[in-house]
Amino acid sequence: MAICSISVVPIGTGSTSVSSYVAMCHDILKDAKGVKYRLTPMATIIEGDLERLLELAGELHRVPFAKGAHRVLTTIILDDRTDKALTMEGKIESVERKLE
Amino acid sequence: MAICSISVVPIGTGSTSVSSYVAMCHDILKDAKGVKYRLTPMATIIEGDLERLLELAGELHRVPFAKGAHRVLTTIILDDRTDKALTMEGKIESVERKLE
Amino acid sequence: MAICSISVVPIGTGSTSVSSYVAMCHDILKDAKGVKYRLTPMATIIEGDLERLLELAGELHRVPFAKGAHRVLTTIILDDRTDKALTMEGKIESVERKLE
Amino acid sequence: MAICSISVVPIGTGSTSVSSYVAMCHDILKDAKGVKYRLTPMATIIEGDLERLLELAGELHRVPFAKGAHRVLTTIILDDRTDKALTMEGKIESVERKLE
Repeated sequence: MAICSISVVPIGTGSTSVSSYVAMCHDILKDAKGVKYRLTPMATIIEGDLERLLELAGELHRVPFAKGAHRVLTTIILDDRTDKALTMEGKIESVERKLE
Repeated sequence: MAICSISVVPIGTGSTSVSSYVAMCHDILKDAKGVKYRLTPMATIIEGDLERLLELAGELHRVPFAKGAHRVLTTIILDDRTDKALTMEGKIESVERKLE
Repeated sequence: MAICSISVVPIGTGSTSVSSYVAMCHDILKDAKGVKYRLTPMATIIEGDLERLLELAGELHRVPFAKGAHRVLTTIILDDRTDKALTMEGKIESVERKLE
Repeated sequence: MAICSISVVPIGTGSTSVSSYVAMCHDILKDAKGVKYRLTPMATIIEGDLERLLELAGELHRVPFAKGAHRVLTTIILDDRTDKALTMEGKIESVERKLE
């Protein structure tokens, strides 16, 4: 399992609002098999198999085009390790234990 | 007010774990004036004045060096707008309203 | 055609040097069909079809694991537009014309 | 000396073109003391003292607002090491030596 953060931003839409694009991405994620995801104020974080994450990244990247945008900037950050199970919850807990 | 996500990663430490560095960053944020922050599984998100965010980014970037690392990779993504108040909570609510 | 920048960084290797991993990525790119690429001091930039870019991103992300790393952080930024041909050279020329 | 890549993108301008904003950023960099910089197809890379890089990041981030944009997304990636001099040229040469 890997974890990625993904942010999909349309360029040149004439509106500073991007939340409707994010909501459309979450409609796709709601039905996506084999992944967990979490909305944050700066990106959506997805946990799953590497192949699945890259496939979903492509799908989410296409969302603004389907809604009429002509340019899209997508930022994907992948965190992946083989020495230990990697989960969104585990990463948070690991920091919180050290903060106690 | 602007919002930034920041991820500070030491390179070449010999350990795949980075949570102790993140915890040290949060020790700094706990005492930081004029900002709100939130830990996520991929980055820490901070809300505050642009100057303050850049100043804190520099401070957090220096954390792994202070702990003995010799190379640090820091990723900062800034979201800033002048047409509307920008808050972490407001961004999440704006998406959630569209998902209802 | 889309353009992406990709940076693949091993975490916890015990060495601050990453150039041998970048060189292995370029060995893969040298033989990759249907893409152009360019090394920069901070990332490798690749031009090609979106599907091909995501497929290559997965291949490059796996390079450090094949070399023995146990954790990898990969940052992919995709720039894609449908209203105009997007090329690495075209983007540079467009800025340079405005600087003259 | 540290190296950063910076990309400054206006959101909601009504135009998919961003090259005029990049050109304005380069007008600022042309006159900036104590740094070297290089345009790439995906970001501008700057080499200099950490404090100077963060200060310039703030200046470049403000460029689209000065030109009338109401929302700006800026991505800054900092690479910094203390065990060895870090330069844009040195990073490229280090990879090229391994590719020969």
